[in-house]
Amino acid sequence: MSDVADWWTTSIIDMEPGRINLRGEPIQDLIGNLSFAEMIWFMVRGSKPSPAQLRLFEAALVAAVDHGPQAPSIATARMAVTCGLPLNNAMASAVNMLGDIHGGAGEQAVELYHFVRAHSYDVGAALDEWVSARGKILPGYGHRFHTPTDPRAPRLMSLVDEAIENGACDGGFKSVAKKIEAELARRKGKPVPMNIDGATAVIYAELGFAAPLARGLFCLSRSVGILAHAWEQTEQGGRNKGPTPPKYLWTYQDAPAQFKSK
Amino acid sequence: MSDVADWWTTSIIDMEPGRINLRGEPIQDLIGNLSFAEMIWFMVRGSKPSPAQLRLFEAALVAAVDHGPQAPSIATARMAVTCGLPLNNAMASAVNMLGDIHGGAGEQAVELYHFVRAHSYDVGAALDEWVSARGKILPGYGHRFHTPTDPRAPRLMSLVDEAIENGACDGGFKSVAKKIEAELARRKGKPVPMNIDGATAVIYAELGFAAPLARGLFCLSRSVGILAHAWEQTEQGGRNKGPTPPKYLWTYQDAPAQFKSK
Amino acid sequence: MSDVADWWTTSIIDMEPGRINLRGEPIQDLIGNLSFAEMIWFMVRGSKPSPAQLRLFEAALVAAVDHGPQAPSIATARMAVTCGLPLNNAMASAVNMLGDIHGGAGEQAVELYHFVRAHSYDVGAALDEWVSARGKILPGYGHRFHTPTDPRAPRLMSLVDEAIENGACDGGFKSVAKKIEAELARRKGKPVPMNIDGATAVIYAELGFAAPLARGLFCLSRSVGILAHAWEQTEQGGRNKGPTPPKYLWTYQDAPAQFKSK
Amino acid sequence: MSDVADWWTTSIIDMEPGRINLRGEPIQDLIGNLSFAEMIWFMVRGSKPSPAQLRLFEAALVAAVDHGPQAPSIATARMAVTCGLPLNNAMASAVNMLGDIHGGAGEQAVELYHFVRAHSYDVGAALDEWVSARGKILPGYGHRFHTPTDPRAPRLMSLVDEAIENGACDGGFKSVAKKIEAELARRKGKPVPMNIDGATAVIYAELGFAAPLARGLFCLSRSVGILAHAWEQTEQGGRNKGPTPPKYLWTYQDAPAQFKSK
Repeated sequence: MSDVADWWTTSIIDMEPGRINLRGEPIQDLIGNLSFAEMIWFMVRGSKPSPAQLRLFEAALVAAVDHGPQAPSIATARMAVTCGLPLNNAMASAVNMLGDIHGGAGEQAVELYHFVRAHSYDVGAALDEWVSARGKILPGYGHRFHTPTDPRAPRLMSLVDEAIENGACDGGFKSVAKKIEAELARRKGKPVPMNIDGATAVIYAELGFAAPLARGLFCLSRSVGILAHAWEQTEQGGRNKGPTPPKYLWTYQDAPAQFKSK
Repeated sequence: MSDVADWWTTSIIDMEPGRINLRGEPIQDLIGNLSFAEMIWFMVRGSKPSPAQLRLFEAALVAAVDHGPQAPSIATARMAVTCGLPLNNAMASAVNMLGDIHGGAGEQAVELYHFVRAHSYDVGAALDEWVSARGKILPGYGHRFHTPTDPRAPRLMSLVDEAIENGACDGGFKSVAKKIEAELARRKGKPVPMNIDGATAVIYAELGFAAPLARGLFCLSRSVGILAHAWEQTEQGGRNKGPTPPKYLWTYQDAPAQFKSK
Repeated sequence: MSDVADWWTTSIIDMEPGRINLRGEPIQDLIGNLSFAEMIWFMVRGSKPSPAQLRLFEAALVAAVDHGPQAPSIATARMAVTCGLPLNNAMASAVNMLGDIHGGAGEQAVELYHFVRAHSYDVGAALDEWVSARGKILPGYGHRFHTPTDPRAPRLMSLVDEAIENGACDGGFKSVAKKIEAELARRKGKPVPMNIDGATAVIYAELGFAAPLARGLFCLSRSVGILAHAWEQTEQGGRNKGPTPPKYLWTYQDAPAQFKSK
Repeated sequence: MSDVADWWTTSIIDMEPGRINLRGEPIQDLIGNLSFAEMIWFMVRGSKPSPAQLRLFEAALVAAVDHGPQAPSIATARMAVTCGLPLNNAMASAVNMLGDIHGGAGEQAVELYHFVRAHSYDVGAALDEWVSARGKILPGYGHRFHTPTDPRAPRLMSLVDEAIENGACDGGFKSVAKKIEAELARRKGKPVPMNIDGATAVIYAELGFAAPLARGLFCLSRSVGILAHAWEQTEQGGRNKGPTPPKYLWTYQDAPAQFKSK
């Protein structure tokens, strides 16, 4: 080839006129033989999951598709179509919102589990070190809305147990996550249960996904809810839908001194 | 509730602390029981596919995940991570690219099939009318690279045949699509075979999806390739990866008159 | 050069190590000598505006910077930073929202003015033809909030008058726009005054900008408000700010039949 | 008002039908009286710049508008329009690319200057501390293409000198930046001159802008080049423009073991 062709080197896809191979396999052999979730795994990792791994993987993907129009991503998708955007642009504006705070907790929780697991000393010391480096909001635990329990987390954890029995994973990260949960409860004097991000992070870590992929896979998952809401709003209609009914406008606050001086 | 709550009315999700229902079913009953592709269908449509419908639906989703780094969407995803973007932002910039020309052919092909089907007169007359209103690039047929045949199309069409046999659909749109293909071959004096967009459009039309959803579902599908490439580039490294190796720069062309005068 | 360099041919920029020319002029001669607005004109068109043209151009850019948090673009920018997005991503999600309905009216109004001007017959006939082809929402006239008058429009039109006197433009498009306004008032039996989009469209058309640039320049202009709001929200703080205060949630509506059957 | 109105509290804009105030001033008094760059300052800060401040501010905005199609942001904008995206979406995909590596150096350089300035001990010790915390790539110095000198930096620094003479700023950050440059030259045994990001960072810091605004203002500035390139590509035409001429495709590399095992 050439330095120009090399500039875009990839191990994912190979093609010539009339032939497309993905991860080394002809596309026509994948179509109709791999489920969509298997295809996700295959594309991202280059290998295929066992049935038990696939079952656990799908559970994580299914669990995070939607959390309603109060989520900035979903609200954005719905407003976007009323601005005249086709679905691709509406989905883009929405997925873009899944930043460190809205979509990054799963990635951070995988990092947390690896961090705690890598320490030979006790969970408490590891948590202290994490908090001092990364701040006091521990990713994957507690929920501002779903109290006392995020209904997705215990269901996902029971599927992790099932997956361990079926040899899909060894439970090492689940054990770490449970120890963190226990330590948090001890410190706070009340349960601070694992939430959806903590639970999907256990799954992605157990299945061997690198931390950033926990966010990437969450984006795929949430894209489903984003599409569903964008489409529902399309059918509802509306033009330039703002965040609140128009009559509320907003409160104007005379500029505080610190703004004027800057 | 209130006019504020009503402003964000949805039939997709209902929740209160500790409870999340999607399309009327508790989330914990969906997790572990629906595959990811079933969940996509369920979220977008509010119903569940039959096994034969699901099989056909997954084939369409699997078929369109990737077409390599020459595709602007994939190139954008790969460049994005070298600009320092996390995966959510890289995916957003890339999905955003799936506009009318890059990602809209499936939607347009569904429209074309409906348009032709709605005409009682012959396919030729319908095509003439379409071309006069929408332009001469017919969505879903021919491919600038995959000649003579896009390997995904015949495979997908054989799965449509299987689905018809299994009662997943009635073949009406397949029949329309085949008639268009025949008419095109007659006009051009050579085959202009259905491509991936034409084939997935047959599937989405057969399964009852509205035309814009052909684009929306394509965005979900292509998001998989986008994620895989963004992640591979992350592992390859690189900073501010441009479109070509740096030494090529670009050709500067002294401004033609029409630019200077505008 | 080479076909690779030619692939990215441009008349905008030319460079080699230590030298950057924009539109044929060394960057160091532009810095400190062109105002930012002059630079916008110079980059987009390759020429430089007269002082009177520049004055009119700046007025249009200044007029459209913001319309408050009820605008989907502004709301998105503010929510975005609370999701953890840096300003570039927040601005991107917001600018993306400026689609046909939210940001396209200026472009459409330029098209309308050209359309009406190109007809030798009367304005009424031209409007009838436009409405029959493009729909009844006439771009650039009326405002759902600013009744009876959008305060930006008369101010901009008085600057157009000033610019005509100073030879910056000839008033041809202003005249067309005023005739449309009169015809609309006649048809409706009450004033349907030109709004911000209609007024900036007069300016961009008078200054010789192609219609799509009316949208592009609006995006530059609105980016200013987007940045200001994103930054103010950054200083206000907040995490995952949704569209309404959390306690309102949203109204769940049991799925209507047409959703379930699709 | 109400808790709903309060949710979107802002000091930037106040309006009622027929009235729009920005930062406390009627929009019609701003239109025609403020230049576009003054308006940017006014919207972001709530105050107005002195003529000398404005002149320096405009220089920074003008300097960073474009760096050619090898920049991922510009390449993305050009590819985007060939995918069928209108200018708003093309600009969004492109601005989105201005992440930590592509668009964050200015922000990081402002942080670096504040960091060094806040230390009473010598520059060398401050740099050591910075590198140990933030990594060895020092923002604002050196350029992989413009060697030995980025032509924008010395021009901008001469305008800083002029601004100091005119009382627009006190030169404190310029002094810090120069000391860093001298220390770097000492350590490397050769000049590692300030680049565009370092120079604009001096300006934004001198003018009192918070570090994140160096990125936000860069996004406004680069949006100009993005728009110009997107528009030029629109006029050049093209469909689904990939990163390289199609005949080069890309190099397929059989998956290395580490991908297959993950």
